[in-house]
Amino acid sequence: MPANRIAEHVEANRTRFLDELKNLIAIPSVSTLPEHDADVRRAADFLVGQLREQVGMPRVELIETAGHPLVYAEAMDVPGKPTVLIYGHYDVQPADPFELWRTPPFEPTVDGDDVRGRGAVDDKGPMFATLKALETLMQTEGKLPVNVRVLIEGEEESGGASIAEYVKSHGGALQADCVLVLDTAMIEKNMPTISYGLRGIVYAEIIARGAGHDLHSGVYGGIAPNPLQALAWVLSDLKGRDGRINLPELYKMMQPLTDDERAALARQSELQEAGFLTAGGLKELPGEANYSIAERASARPTFEVHGVCGGFTGEGAKTVIPAEATAKVSLRLVPNQTPDAVFKLLAKRVAELSVPGVTMEVRDLHGGDAVLLSLESSALKAAATALETEFGKSVTYAREGGSIPVVALFDEVLHAPVVMLGFGLPDDNLHAPNEKFYIPNYYAAIRTVANFLTLL
Amino acid sequence: MPANRIAEHVEANRTRFLDELKNLIAIPSVSTLPEHDADVRRAADFLVGQLREQVGMPRVELIETAGHPLVYAEAMDVPGKPTVLIYGHYDVQPADPFELWRTPPFEPTVDGDDVRGRGAVDDKGPMFATLKALETLMQTEGKLPVNVRVLIEGEEESGGASIAEYVKSHGGALQADCVLVLDTAMIEKNMPTISYGLRGIVYAEIIARGAGHDLHSGVYGGIAPNPLQALAWVLSDLKGRDGRINLPELYKMMQPLTDDERAALARQSELQEAGFLTAGGLKELPGEANYSIAERASARPTFEVHGVCGGFTGEGAKTVIPAEATAKVSLRLVPNQTPDAVFKLLAKRVAELSVPGVTMEVRDLHGGDAVLLSLESSALKAAATALETEFGKSVTYAREGGSIPVVALFDEVLHAPVVMLGFGLPDDNLHAPNEKFYIPNYYAAIRTVANFLTLL
Repeated sequence: MPANRIAEHVEANRTRFLDELKNLIAIPSVSTLPEHDADVRRAADFLVGQLREQVGMPRVELIETAGHPLVYAEAMDVPGKPTVLIYGHYDVQPADPFELWRTPPFEPTVDGDDVRGRGAVDDKGPMFATLKALETLMQTEGKLPVNVRVLIEGEEESGGASIAEYVKSHGGALQADCVLVLDTAMIEKNMPTISYGLRGIVYAEIIARGAGHDLHSGVYGGIAPNPLQALAWVLSDLKGRDGRINLPELYKMMQPLTDDERAALARQSELQEAGFLTAGGLKELPGEANYSIAERASARPTFEVHGVCGGFTGEGAKTVIPAEATAKVSLRLVPNQTPDAVFKLLAKRVAELSVPGVTMEVRDLHGGDAVLLSLESSALKAAATALETEFGKSVTYAREGGSIPVVALFDEVLHAPVVMLGFGLPDDNLHAPNEKFYIPNYYAAIRTVANFLTLL
Repeated sequence: MPANRIAEHVEANRTRFLDELKNLIAIPSVSTLPEHDADVRRAADFLVGQLREQVGMPRVELIETAGHPLVYAEAMDVPGKPTVLIYGHYDVQPADPFELWRTPPFEPTVDGDDVRGRGAVDDKGPMFATLKALETLMQTEGKLPVNVRVLIEGEEESGGASIAEYVKSHGGALQADCVLVLDTAMIEKNMPTISYGLRGIVYAEIIARGAGHDLHSGVYGGIAPNPLQALAWVLSDLKGRDGRINLPELYKMMQPLTDDERAALARQSELQEAGFLTAGGLKELPGEANYSIAERASARPTFEVHGVCGGFTGEGAKTVIPAEATAKVSLRLVPNQTPDAVFKLLAKRVAELSVPGVTMEVRDLHGGDAVLLSLESSALKAAATALETEFGKSVTYAREGGSIPVVALFDEVLHAPVVMLGFGLPDDNLHAPNEKFYIPNYYAAIRTVANFLTLL
């Protein structure tokens, strides 16, 4: 039985598999910070080496792009069998604020059942598990049971422009019968989860400009425009205290949920509430009234302020009226809300909200479409079987609150069902200090992916 | 005629007087930044040396405090003559943003008729002019015409706690018949100005705290409190787009202006408007409707946001919901609005505006009372005569928009009239990059102060 051989192989290689993952996490492949460009490439090179030498894929390539390179591999030598495209990303979020990490973000540390480090769960751990699954199949069976393409990007955390460009222009060369993505989460520990929806995103920067230079509030207080105050008015108007986003057309665009979906999300909310509170260090989960927690976290559009910067922010006091202030904001989008259209709504609304003496520039930093997948494909059914075998429990089908922009593109360009298997946990601190990956899920992911490919 | 001898002496020492001022400006005595503590002390030592060796004051002391030292000097050897207490400050504002300076802030540079550098006008130039006036009198007349005390602080830009403490506890030892302050501005170049009012101030920090650590908006967008959004709601509520501060009791506290005062401020506004626009690099001067520019800039309370900091503010995009965000704010106050009472109003209002999941801490960083001085003292009349002699024009009596917290204390503890002679100009960029002092006003200040002391 292959499943047994797979499990035995994983067991026999536990330490090495974990050490190799730690080597990958140790590379600070922060795609959004130019000072890490060389590190990002180092992570790509590491994966090329793994695919060539450890996995033994017959064709492995580093694909240069305008940004960070793509890692591509294929083993297309099982005629008559389906082709699976495995997607992942090797870049990570910036690690700041560094002082909040219990151990340095790029010195991966095993702590109980977790391995801690930036990118551990997003997405190095789950992505690397797919490579270790391929290696396991190669070493136990001598070859892969299906045709496989692997495509790993280095810009998922900074907009994913290069993979989007590549998929659009090389769609034919990526032909596949299904796409496998390990970059989502379980709704709770030991609750095997398949994600069938992702939110889209628009990320923008609002730059407010007032005087020609910083002014002294003793002289100009009461007569000069204040870009920080203007930003407060704009941000306050864009989202009300009731959690409602003040872009009415945004809600008109969205595809309404069915009653069944809302009811399922309400049930899921009960399972998730305690985890969300504990993992976030929160006492409550505020937001729009009349929507359950899971609905707000995965099936409603959001508006969030990610950073504001302007004026004097050191210790002590300085009575400056700043010449300029900036806010970084994003909207998470649900199906039918396209990033371009929503960016236009945002820019228009900000312009309407401008105040005398302050100009507002709105810059589109990146965007990605929301995705809603069919639950009917045979690939999805094989994945569910593999998960249920691994965990001994039936699968929960969930919508994910985050965004993986390229998934919408796979759906659209390759016309292949996308299967998203979640191995992250709610307390994994992704995008936050002390990000970690639950090590038992690493091995579970390796076994599940190997079994899924065998079942196909 | 002493006035002639004074003018001749100033003329004969032009270069040295300016070089010595440049030496003082070159010391980065930024009182609010702990890394400059040694520089602040160096500036105090420089003044002690000047008062001892150049001016020749018989008693000169460096007075240690809990913060930065006070510089004190006296020459009390003219029995039967009045005593003048000369106040100034040797500390300066932080110089950032450094990249906007045309020349380095602590490398004083003469550019046409100006000397540029942090602190040039606030308050090193005008303050140092009072020392050079004393030196001029000593050297031309052999002694001072009145009894003089000099008290120069090093914390004016960071709250002035030490001088406040000292004046309260040593008021008797500072006995004076009038106080002379050179730390204000002319309403326009060549418009000799005596300030009879100062705004008070409350400077506070609002710290908004949400989750236990930064969260990922893909997971928590829609269910987690966002401290930056909460700050936007609070700041937006505290001041409306109409410029009105949403603390109704603030307006009830204030002493109303007389019709004559409002009319005078309206006339002054016409003189000041072009200067405010040019100096600030502004196209308009927005604010409360139905109040003239000068009234808004000097006789109305203000609320300004000086800095906001939170979340991801680097290049690019990070989808973080920050755990914490901070805003620095101040209110400028007019007579009868006491800092303590206004801080309580602010803290109460912020508490009322709190939103679910976000705690708001309001910290009082410093405060100072507003001042409104009588125009009837003989000291003020002597000052007006000295100014009119210097400029050949009648004096404008103005209210200053800024705050010099210790002036209220002099008024209250010493019961002596305070005379504020303005030698700054509207385009001197105080508290901003490229701060400067108009050199002809430096010499005018030296002559005017020397003549004022002679006239007393």
